[in-house]
Amino acid sequence: MNTYSSRLLEEAVSELSKLPGIGRRTAVRLALHILKQDVAKSESLGNAIIKLRSEVKYCERCHNISDADICAICSDSKRDTSIICVVEDVRDVMAIENTGQFRGVYHVLGGVISPMDGVGPGDINADSLVVRLSHENVAEIILALPATTEGDTTGFYLFKRLNDKVNSISVISRGVAIGDDLEFADEITLGKSITARVPYSR
Amino acid sequence: MNTYSSRLLEEAVSELSKLPGIGRRTAVRLALHILKQDVAKSESLGNAIIKLRSEVKYCERCHNISDADICAICSDSKRDTSIICVVEDVRDVMAIENTGQFRGVYHVLGGVISPMDGVGPGDINADSLVVRLSHENVAEIILALPATTEGDTTGFYLFKRLNDKVNSISVISRGVAIGDDLEFADEITLGKSITARVPYSR
Repeated sequence: MNTYSSRLLEEAVSELSKLPGIGRRTAVRLALHILKQDVAKSESLGNAIIKLRSEVKYCERCHNISDADICAICSDSKRDTSIICVVEDVRDVMAIENTGQFRGVYHVLGGVISPMDGVGPGDINADSLVVRLSHENVAEIILALPATTEGDTTGFYLFKRLNDKVNSISVISRGVAIGDDLEFADEITLGKSITARVPYSR
Repeated sequence: MNTYSSRLLEEAVSELSKLPGIGRRTAVRLALHILKQDVAKSESLGNAIIKLRSEVKYCERCHNISDADICAICSDSKRDTSIICVVEDVRDVMAIENTGQFRGVYHVLGGVISPMDGVGPGDINADSLVVRLSHENVAEIILALPATTEGDTTGFYLFKRLNDKVNSISVISRGVAIGDDLEFADEITLGKSITARVPYSR
């Protein structure tokens, strides 16, 4: 039985409930909230979602989310471009920026190697990191990958590929709880992990 | 410090976190999910939100959400228009429709009387219910309002206004939920279900 008296409501609920962590009941609550707001507010929300996906760019250098060809971090002359922090995704960049402890630049892999999920070395932005090392004057690579099997695998893979191309490869200290994603670590712990980084060893 | 490398991302996160129950962290997660999807998917989500608010109508008879001037329930010839179930909002209509136990029609108040929140009798769709009683052939009004002080106040107000205009006014039964253990029911509900006991039948 169709419990929706409006096709528009049904469509909005169906679309909202496709978002991760949004069940049908929450989607109904969100839709009814949107209905109670001004037209202008629903339009800014809807357009922000559409523009985000259609207009966003990825930095040609570090693959971070960007509004221009080169992101604000890479083009910031005050950042130390000789230190590259390698992270899994954009959330990690935001989390590390939040700590205020890192003044280098980033390299966003866009994933970690995970044979279970069919993600191999060719599916992450590893080649472009090797290219960066040949073009840029890089003194240190910091591996800030998740403390998971996949993160460790990716770190080991990168270490093997990069070890003879850069002076120093370090990993963030395991102040971050094992098994936790970087984004869930508190700022002090995550900041400490970056400042107390140690040479890569296996 | 600005931790967003993209103004588009910042705007989307800001808009999403205005939704009830969506914090900044969840908003970032949703935004990054949207980024990973096809353009078409973000467009259907964004447009569904915009269209929901700009194109939705409210049924002229029962104030339910509708795509036309009269909603699908009111215009359904198989529904019993002599029984009107009075509810607070559209969610209640959907919840009752979900049970499949009610074949009458609805009247959506759009709120309950709450002096604390500045909602008076004039702010809910009560007048239009009185008008319906004079125009339509109504045998019974079912009050399906929240079991709160506000719901009770609203029910009492409506009872006083409608009592001489309709044969029967009933309220939905209150008691221990089906499948619930007695020990988990709150004292007021359990007390009410004992005083409002009904003859045993099977």
